[in-house]
Amino acid sequence: MNIKVLREQTLEANLDLVKKNLVIMTWGNVSGYDPETGYIAIKASGVKYEEMNSEHMTVLDMEGRIVEGKYKPSTDTPTHLVLYRAFKDQGIRGIVHTHSQFATVWAQSGVDVPCLGTTHGDYFYGDIPVSRPLLAEEIQGEYEKNTGDVILETLETKKTGCRRMSAVLVHSHGPFVWGDSPAEAVEHSLVLEYISKMAYCNVTMNCSFRDKPIPRIQQELADKHYNRKFGPGAYYGQASKT
Amino acid sequence: MNIKVLREQTLEANLDLVKKNLVIMTWGNVSGYDPETGYIAIKASGVKYEEMNSEHMTVLDMEGRIVEGKYKPSTDTPTHLVLYRAFKDQGIRGIVHTHSQFATVWAQSGVDVPCLGTTHGDYFYGDIPVSRPLLAEEIQGEYEKNTGDVILETLETKKTGCRRMSAVLVHSHGPFVWGDSPAEAVEHSLVLEYISKMAYCNVTMNCSFRDKPIPRIQQELADKHYNRKFGPGAYYGQASKT
Amino acid sequence: MNIKVLREQTLEANLDLVKKNLVIMTWGNVSGYDPETGYIAIKASGVKYEEMNSEHMTVLDMEGRIVEGKYKPSTDTPTHLVLYRAFKDQGIRGIVHTHSQFATVWAQSGVDVPCLGTTHGDYFYGDIPVSRPLLAEEIQGEYEKNTGDVILETLETKKTGCRRMSAVLVHSHGPFVWGDSPAEAVEHSLVLEYISKMAYCNVTMNCSFRDKPIPRIQQELADKHYNRKFGPGAYYGQASKT
Amino acid sequence: MNIKVLREQTLEANLDLVKKNLVIMTWGNVSGYDPETGYIAIKASGVKYEEMNSEHMTVLDMEGRIVEGKYKPSTDTPTHLVLYRAFKDQGIRGIVHTHSQFATVWAQSGVDVPCLGTTHGDYFYGDIPVSRPLLAEEIQGEYEKNTGDVILETLETKKTGCRRMSAVLVHSHGPFVWGDSPAEAVEHSLVLEYISKMAYCNVTMNCSFRDKPIPRIQQELADKHYNRKFGPGAYYGQASKT
Repeated sequence: MNIKVLREQTLEANLDLVKKNLVIMTWGNVSGYDPETGYIAIKASGVKYEEMNSEHMTVLDMEGRIVEGKYKPSTDTPTHLVLYRAFKDQGIRGIVHTHSQFATVWAQSGVDVPCLGTTHGDYFYGDIPVSRPLLAEEIQGEYEKNTGDVILETLETKKTGCRRMSAVLVHSHGPFVWGDSPAEAVEHSLVLEYISKMAYCNVTMNCSFRDKPIPRIQQELADKHYNRKFGPGAYYGQASKT
Repeated sequence: MNIKVLREQTLEANLDLVKKNLVIMTWGNVSGYDPETGYIAIKASGVKYEEMNSEHMTVLDMEGRIVEGKYKPSTDTPTHLVLYRAFKDQGIRGIVHTHSQFATVWAQSGVDVPCLGTTHGDYFYGDIPVSRPLLAEEIQGEYEKNTGDVILETLETKKTGCRRMSAVLVHSHGPFVWGDSPAEAVEHSLVLEYISKMAYCNVTMNCSFRDKPIPRIQQELADKHYNRKFGPGAYYGQASKT
Repeated sequence: MNIKVLREQTLEANLDLVKKNLVIMTWGNVSGYDPETGYIAIKASGVKYEEMNSEHMTVLDMEGRIVEGKYKPSTDTPTHLVLYRAFKDQGIRGIVHTHSQFATVWAQSGVDVPCLGTTHGDYFYGDIPVSRPLLAEEIQGEYEKNTGDVILETLETKKTGCRRMSAVLVHSHGPFVWGDSPAEAVEHSLVLEYISKMAYCNVTMNCSFRDKPIPRIQQELADKHYNRKFGPGAYYGQASKT
Repeated sequence: MNIKVLREQTLEANLDLVKKNLVIMTWGNVSGYDPETGYIAIKASGVKYEEMNSEHMTVLDMEGRIVEGKYKPSTDTPTHLVLYRAFKDQGIRGIVHTHSQFATVWAQSGVDVPCLGTTHGDYFYGDIPVSRPLLAEEIQGEYEKNTGDVILETLETKKTGCRRMSAVLVHSHGPFVWGDSPAEAVEHSLVLEYISKMAYCNVTMNCSFRDKPIPRIQQELADKHYNRKFGPGAYYGQASKT
């Protein structure tokens, strides 16, 4: 991919965050990774979405050195770099960070988003994990890099990988989400927000009218839905893998 | 009805799901049934709503064989076929499946949506039932066909029929809804979402400020409202049945 | 006022219900009253808002006889007539009925909307009352007329009048709201929905984090805010009554 | 700054309240302060946003005397004047009052909005305080001036200043918010509403599924996020203070 295309795709995905009501103000950022050059493009820091164009997509190498672009990249760039280094060999090409409301509520609660139905199970295999809080020294040191490390640690602790679980909620902060492209990472962010809202409603409602635990999805049903979209015999969509 | 009209009506109803905020992504599907030919039209699997046209409405016979159309039909097609076979002699001509948020919350809770007022009572006669969870073998076998069967079983268990109860919530999944046309099935889906949200609020609020059960609608009031719209002496609307 | 103007004003107010997200489908209705002729105009029954024009505003006399218009008036017309007969000498010129979501939630709860702040106190003097449930014979008899009577009974029971309290929530049903014009009745409906949502949040939140009752507005503050807008020394707005 | 610019900036900020869904009806008001002339511009009382133009921005001196403009200024003007007198030497140039929904819910609850995450910590240093209720004599006396005084008293009681805490919620009423310009004061109002909604969700959710207190943000994390935007070594945005 040439750098221009990388920048354009990353710009489109950033602008999509606004259209999908996942960000306000200058919040959030999307990056894209090009395996040919080994470069990433990422939103510049503190830029208004209304004024954003492809010039605001700063291009960096994997060590975070600016290759192209006159703007300072997002302050969250070190987090993205940690994740690409760990995920790129598994095909991850886009990463998103937002403070979308219900996903952030779960991040603030310190509780994993439980898988309560097929809407969740169609995209995420299992509960969506919240990281542990960062330690004082991690916050006061290389904070953004350490944020990336704690995301990787969370996936390891939960014994899951970046393909089956394309989001981690950073404790007291918000979601980091990824996918096969910047556009797909935004789609995963939208689904995450949608299921986070529904899980919020289930949890508050359940307490209200009975004392039983909320009914988690059956494992067979989670398997069925995940696999009919992503498994070896997938049959959802026009280009299924059968 | 000729097949072109069937496809157009089904397309319009599918696009209406987006306008009415009942779906995001490629989620949901609407089908329409034509009693003359005995054919149904249904949305193709995994198609984006922004790019959808009548070509994406695949036409099938009652055994699920493609009659017209080059796209693979929705993965939920076997569920629709089970329902049409059971409902078509009672005038059902459209079926909708969505993951609309509050209806899905109730599906995930495993609890019927209680009838708490006339907004509900104007359209649905009684609580809106949630199905039992599917068994492991039902999930691992002909899953989509079995989903249809469990919907029929739910109506039977509740001793209600498809005219008085035009929706069933599939456990841990979401709503299936029907009506006299694809358009009416979408309207019923919209009302279902509206009353599901209100019932959520009533249930959460009630717990908060008193220990009495939430006040269910009086049976007389439910009868009055349902019958002034659909009973033998109906007097709502311009073309009432009197 | 000539009948054409009455119809136009009533049409505008009806269409405003959609713009202000107070109705979906064919729900809700607004009527207007002209003291010169003693006629009211009201939305025809079951008409779609997208197709609505002034022809759909049926004109009636105070006994409910059609004076002008070819469409059957709203099924709720007898309720409106009962209220105009009681309120017209106090200047009420518009009445609205909706199933707006949070006002309806309170109607379904059977609990008055508590006055918790100045947003409420600026428009409604005191809690917004929910009527008692109608009796079986009231439902099975002249239901819509009896609905009007129970609204009047509610104001009497609460020892308030139609000027200080411009809304009553009919039990298990929804709000009836009035004002100096059809447009003002719609504005009151919008404020009612807004404060009903906030009161819902306060009630659910309060239970969650402490065991004290929610702090009701102080009487002095309710008096201050209501009177700076509507009292003898009002000083809010450009045309205050001082 | 000339008066025309002051009026234009204040007008833009007022109109922005509607675009950002922070006001309905004629509610809310924004003022701007010009340190050169010592004048403020503020929205006229009870004006509709659809009809608003710069003529509706009334210009006053610090004693509240009208310098320019034919309309009566907002009834809340004395509150704004009290705040400018206290804050202008610390660079505050814009003040906003709204009844935005979730901020108002917290004002009605009488409980400070807890800092639960970095979204909050990025803008406000610590919990957002609710004032004490005004005394009966404060309400019945110079109510709007006393509202300003109680806001100042709240900041003093909480041992915080107008730079680190740019909002106070007036008890049973709603938020007053400020910033370096009318536009920034509106931005702070938007963030306040956003985090107030999330904190509402956290508080209601937490009660529902466990008995532990909600996890407040760690002090180190609040410090980190506030300081990377506003501290001496700030590195967020293109024009950071390093």
